[in-house]
Amino acid sequence: MALIDHVKDPPAVIGYQLDNETKAYNTSGPNVQAAFVASMKAKWPSLDALNKAYGLDYWSNRINKWEDFPSVSGSINASLSNAFAAFQRSLVTDFLTWQARLVRAHARPGQFLTQNFDLAWRGYSYGIQPEVDHWKSAKPLDIAGIDIYHPSQDKLTGAEIAFGGDVSRSMRNGQNYLVLETEAQGFPHWTPYPGQLRLQAFSHLASGAQMVEYWHWATTANAVETYWRGLLSQDYKPNAVYAEASTVGADLKRIGPKLAGMTKRNQVAIYVSNAALSAFDSFKPDGGVDYNQVLRPFYDALYRINVEVDILSPDSTTKLDDYKLIVVPALYAASGAEIGRLNDFATRGGHLLYTFKSGFSDENTKVRYATQPGTIAEAAGVTYQQFTIPEGVTLDSDPFGVGEKDNMARWWMEMLTPTTAKVVARYRHPSWPASAAMTRNAWGKGEVSYIGFMPSEMLVEKIMAAEVKRAGVQPSLPGVRFPLIVKGGFLKNGRRVNYVFNYSATAQAVALPRGGTELLKSRTIPEGQSIRLAPWDVAIVEERGGSGSQHRD
Amino acid sequence: MALIDHVKDPPAVIGYQLDNETKAYNTSGPNVQAAFVASMKAKWPSLDALNKAYGLDYWSNRINKWEDFPSVSGSINASLSNAFAAFQRSLVTDFLTWQARLVRAHARPGQFLTQNFDLAWRGYSYGIQPEVDHWKSAKPLDIAGIDIYHPSQDKLTGAEIAFGGDVSRSMRNGQNYLVLETEAQGFPHWTPYPGQLRLQAFSHLASGAQMVEYWHWATTANAVETYWRGLLSQDYKPNAVYAEASTVGADLKRIGPKLAGMTKRNQVAIYVSNAALSAFDSFKPDGGVDYNQVLRPFYDALYRINVEVDILSPDSTTKLDDYKLIVVPALYAASGAEIGRLNDFATRGGHLLYTFKSGFSDENTKVRYATQPGTIAEAAGVTYQQFTIPEGVTLDSDPFGVGEKDNMARWWMEMLTPTTAKVVARYRHPSWPASAAMTRNAWGKGEVSYIGFMPSEMLVEKIMAAEVKRAGVQPSLPGVRFPLIVKGGFLKNGRRVNYVFNYSATAQAVALPRGGTELLKSRTIPEGQSIRLAPWDVAIVEERGGSGSQHRD
Amino acid sequence: MALIDHVKDPPAVIGYQLDNETKAYNTSGPNVQAAFVASMKAKWPSLDALNKAYGLDYWSNRINKWEDFPSVSGSINASLSNAFAAFQRSLVTDFLTWQARLVRAHARPGQFLTQNFDLAWRGYSYGIQPEVDHWKSAKPLDIAGIDIYHPSQDKLTGAEIAFGGDVSRSMRNGQNYLVLETEAQGFPHWTPYPGQLRLQAFSHLASGAQMVEYWHWATTANAVETYWRGLLSQDYKPNAVYAEASTVGADLKRIGPKLAGMTKRNQVAIYVSNAALSAFDSFKPDGGVDYNQVLRPFYDALYRINVEVDILSPDSTTKLDDYKLIVVPALYAASGAEIGRLNDFATRGGHLLYTFKSGFSDENTKVRYATQPGTIAEAAGVTYQQFTIPEGVTLDSDPFGVGEKDNMARWWMEMLTPTTAKVVARYRHPSWPASAAMTRNAWGKGEVSYIGFMPSEMLVEKIMAAEVKRAGVQPSLPGVRFPLIVKGGFLKNGRRVNYVFNYSATAQAVALPRGGTELLKSRTIPEGQSIRLAPWDVAIVEERGGSGSQHRD
Repeated sequence: MALIDHVKDPPAVIGYQLDNETKAYNTSGPNVQAAFVASMKAKWPSLDALNKAYGLDYWSNRINKWEDFPSVSGSINASLSNAFAAFQRSLVTDFLTWQARLVRAHARPGQFLTQNFDLAWRGYSYGIQPEVDHWKSAKPLDIAGIDIYHPSQDKLTGAEIAFGGDVSRSMRNGQNYLVLETEAQGFPHWTPYPGQLRLQAFSHLASGAQMVEYWHWATTANAVETYWRGLLSQDYKPNAVYAEASTVGADLKRIGPKLAGMTKRNQVAIYVSNAALSAFDSFKPDGGVDYNQVLRPFYDALYRINVEVDILSPDSTTKLDDYKLIVVPALYAASGAEIGRLNDFATRGGHLLYTFKSGFSDENTKVRYATQPGTIAEAAGVTYQQFTIPEGVTLDSDPFGVGEKDNMARWWMEMLTPTTAKVVARYRHPSWPASAAMTRNAWGKGEVSYIGFMPSEMLVEKIMAAEVKRAGVQPSLPGVRFPLIVKGGFLKNGRRVNYVFNYSATAQAVALPRGGTELLKSRTIPEGQSIRLAPWDVAIVEERGGSGSQHRD
Repeated sequence: MALIDHVKDPPAVIGYQLDNETKAYNTSGPNVQAAFVASMKAKWPSLDALNKAYGLDYWSNRINKWEDFPSVSGSINASLSNAFAAFQRSLVTDFLTWQARLVRAHARPGQFLTQNFDLAWRGYSYGIQPEVDHWKSAKPLDIAGIDIYHPSQDKLTGAEIAFGGDVSRSMRNGQNYLVLETEAQGFPHWTPYPGQLRLQAFSHLASGAQMVEYWHWATTANAVETYWRGLLSQDYKPNAVYAEASTVGADLKRIGPKLAGMTKRNQVAIYVSNAALSAFDSFKPDGGVDYNQVLRPFYDALYRINVEVDILSPDSTTKLDDYKLIVVPALYAASGAEIGRLNDFATRGGHLLYTFKSGFSDENTKVRYATQPGTIAEAAGVTYQQFTIPEGVTLDSDPFGVGEKDNMARWWMEMLTPTTAKVVARYRHPSWPASAAMTRNAWGKGEVSYIGFMPSEMLVEKIMAAEVKRAGVQPSLPGVRFPLIVKGGFLKNGRRVNYVFNYSATAQAVALPRGGTELLKSRTIPEGQSIRLAPWDVAIVEERGGSGSQHRD
Repeated sequence: MALIDHVKDPPAVIGYQLDNETKAYNTSGPNVQAAFVASMKAKWPSLDALNKAYGLDYWSNRINKWEDFPSVSGSINASLSNAFAAFQRSLVTDFLTWQARLVRAHARPGQFLTQNFDLAWRGYSYGIQPEVDHWKSAKPLDIAGIDIYHPSQDKLTGAEIAFGGDVSRSMRNGQNYLVLETEAQGFPHWTPYPGQLRLQAFSHLASGAQMVEYWHWATTANAVETYWRGLLSQDYKPNAVYAEASTVGADLKRIGPKLAGMTKRNQVAIYVSNAALSAFDSFKPDGGVDYNQVLRPFYDALYRINVEVDILSPDSTTKLDDYKLIVVPALYAASGAEIGRLNDFATRGGHLLYTFKSGFSDENTKVRYATQPGTIAEAAGVTYQQFTIPEGVTLDSDPFGVGEKDNMARWWMEMLTPTTAKVVARYRHPSWPASAAMTRNAWGKGEVSYIGFMPSEMLVEKIMAAEVKRAGVQPSLPGVRFPLIVKGGFLKNGRRVNYVFNYSATAQAVALPRGGTELLKSRTIPEGQSIRLAPWDVAIVEERGGSGSQHRD
């Protein structure tokens, strides 16, 4: 802690980032193995209990003595390897908690602690991070931090900025967050078009970012990040990107104080789980589809129809009843208690949507011996015994009106039999019986929907639009979809602020339901008058008067 | 043998499966290496003889002392690595022979011994197993056993069931066999359409299976086979697949005793060789085409035109003269004696068809210094010196009438020069001379055909149809091809039984040349009356009277 | 040297090939590491200097003590790994120099020394060899040698024969060379069409080869090269390829003495650099484009328009002023002095063409802190700060008239700002500003062109045709392009000889500007009369009278 003692005093030091992209990086050496076995000893009353829960009798995997506990690297048993994955995630939580304690003990009062978390990577920041329990690891911090890297040029959609922001804001139950790194020039193929850097910066703010930092100031002249370009190139001279960043700085100097501290009151949440992710990804369907590839289409569909969401996890302390609709994709492994908590939300009046594979396994990645979908079956009013990978399977009569090309099931197909549920959609195929594909069930004061397949992208969007409507949720800009995106919240002055984005190379005009003051250009927008947006443009409109129609009641 | 002593007495124990999918799994540790070197010492009179036979002087591979014998892992010399492959196969034979001796010494009289063999895998059971000499390994058994896993849904053709069955039946020279494992629900993408499980079961029987066992009863809830689904899912409750399997059980209870013990009298054989396979696969043409990829199109073509075959190997004890036509694909490595035995079959009146690359190397994977195709050249009345990979090479004047798209040579192209043979087909290409592509030669009382290239799928079918006709072989249902498949044989009562299969999602009608009794529905089929088959349907027709026209004379 | 003493005396021994395809093969064991560190100690005044030059402070790569010098295998620092690559190349130079000294000390006077060099491999001989400094390694020889293996059949273009020949001839500053290996039958898919072997042999001669040897005489019957076929197959009998080779032998016996010792006087050179190659390939753009993939399209374009070239390297002793035009592709890493030498060539009246990425890094693969393109900026009269990977980027108004499909930038795109240069082409794209794509700058008595992007194949050809014309260079057959290729030089009798090749399966006619004697068929070609060439045919025309119009003045 000599480091903290050395740097804490200058007034420019306002806080500490504990570490960068901390992960277990698959550490599995002897000390980690020993600690894992100790954790298993603590978790299970006996080896017999463990053997049974993890199904180790099968294929001669039984462990007869704690001393014989094998390395789980390359295990064929997902129950065991997912227990190890959970243990590895706990190492990250423990490490950051320990570091936070040390730094806090030496820091000046008022200095904050943050950490640079990152998302699952897929050439860019893509999904839920499988190696870190973000909700647990964010607890010892004062404010969450994240890096978000995303496609650019014609592939810039803002979806990753929104997703990463929603994850970060949700980690600490709605508290705003810091973008500790994002791209300035980035990879050569990410060099932003004129306007995009500005669009990106305000997109972060619209999700609740209190700061946007670029990685990095100037590009290094050697080594592996030579082409990971910062605001400046190796010439250390102003350039087009730097100039655009300067306009953001000027704007924030002027209107930043007003924008800071915005709060959101979202009515829709998406429920994610690292246990489900590890379990799902142990048995990827259709040649490699993973959990995040199921999650993101649901997230992205809501993003495209201008419905902002929070992200819930088993470790969230947010009240479920704060939401009108909770979407639960691929909750493949979960305890009965965890599912019961979700079902109870519906009982009390909430709308709950499960997708295929949810409830299939218990919390130990053991498939339930019960009729599927296990603990969900009664609440959803549906069961199934057969499933397959759909080939040429459509929905009968195109119930969501998406047209032939999009009316497709992909990746997975459960052949549903409603018990008490109503059928929303049926499969159509020359050789399969016309079993149910999606159902809806009244459950207590609420309702539970179940989707037995992975819909095409456009189908997901239409399904989500229908669910959102049923749940009485109003989008931030009803009836308008991507590339026009509206995100926002409530300013410290109590007024609604709408960030309006044009994620396209074509100029657009959009009419907001209520007028207000456009803050970037300091102009008044009369009610019903269209705002014109240049390609990759942004407007920020502060509504007049108090809280608007977007309020959660 | 405590195990056998423990389990042998209950009357339900009727036999033993020695082991499961036994293979060398590339074992090559110090003890295996020592045993291999010992086997080389035994095989060769001197190191000089070995160095010469394997061409080890080249590229400094010469072995000067037995103590210097190198590991052959990663050897650049296929003669050496194929000798090692043969040695590894001998380990399997030795192991099973040893196990059989032990079990037999402890088993009750009347209990049988079998073994679960498997085929070369390619996402499913595909071809000749390179790691086991099935004919040798099956000798110590009482009955052969096999597992057969195959594509399903729209990809179900029955070809793998027939191929695996023909291999198993041929291992013990025509004796029927056990299907010790096959899929019930299998992989998620193999979930069978309604009717398919039934179709599959009777397809096994029609090839000579005396039993069909599913892997496995109920699906496990943990570990790597969680999605390898048995008859039951993890809920242990009856389901659609189980219900369909039950109908098969009921049918077999009723008509099984009549069907059991069927014998086949096939007039066509395909000749395969593990030595040729290893050698061929050491020098795969056209970026990776392997031996089984040459073999299967010839097998499959016969299957599609309803010609049932036996499989011969260098270790078969079946008499060649039992056949009218022997097809020899890619017999890349074989001794002069082995080829002589085949040529002599033609001398005595048989029809013999060799494909490209046959005869190229001797039994030690040493290319013959003789004019190619080596020991075949005289019998086939053809030689060649040049070969290449064909690009845009067709057969002149489309001699088999398959149309432009299918009239193609692929993978390999030998430029044949007939000596005494007649030209059946010539190549056509802007830059290559019009050398012969396929020839036919009168040889003794029979004839020898030679195909210098790999024909397209449809070309193979037409070529085989022509050869079958020339050889005077009658298909099980002349003039009818896939998806209508007829397989069968002679019941214990001496009558011909025809299993008629519809391998398609479309209903079909088919007229058998002779009527009979359809056993599944116990109905009479008058001569000349069509049988109607639902999608994926099967009928079993016992002909009236004694042996029919299908008999070999 | 017992070997040399043993073989030197027979008169058939006329020289020695030192070694075959000598390379470092990534040797990096302890002794190599020790020698590398010693070389670093010798090169750098201090570790501080090295740390600074290689940017090792970044990402904690700093080396604090020579004893701590890490292995550079897997280094993330390209400055360090490229220094190691250069060291590995020096091992090859040292080894061959040492071997040459030893052999020379024992050889008979008059016996020559050569070495079999090879090119970068890409399924065939493709580009500059990254692992050998050919110019340095060829110094201790008496004559350069090379092996050239190239696509055949419809993919035979002669480009690899020309490229390999130009590299070999240039290694020793214009001295002719030996083709120590090339394909006879080669891979199965390289079996030559009738005529091609002959075409190939004379193509080597036309580039300056004094000998063409085939690898190999007869094909081996075992081991990895069983399908790497020589002139004869394993049957050791004459065949079609052998017969064709025999005609070449007969021709050479007759006219070889006249053809031998031809000299070239090329007016265009391409400048290559192994330091630039290593550096460029450390940061391959667009998912893996490498240095040779940039170099070859420029080389090939000149080849297709019948402009013969020499190859220059930083180690060449050839005078730059011997050329009218020097093309410099992707000179990514080079010292200021090296670039200065090139710029000075333009100052004195030469035409100089740089492509994108040239000048970006210094000789230590450290990006210049200067405005890009660094030391080139002033001479080229252009700067840039931004670059990206182009997607759908065309050249405004199709300045080279190649049509929509070919008017494309690929792989890399620098957004150029001319300072003193004229704009030759501008980018066109919906979202990018219309910055310059190619510029041309008067510099001293000459001019410097700069291409900021990788043009499509056809664009490269048109750009090169324009540069060639501007530089006053006359092609060997003006206005005629591939598949008609003319290469040649000046015979010992002082007359120009033109080898005329038809690289196509279609007969061609071509009129040479001056008549002469066609040597192969000993016929007179009157001025202006067309020569008819069969598919894959060659003619050799000796011009009448003294040196022709092709002379460099």
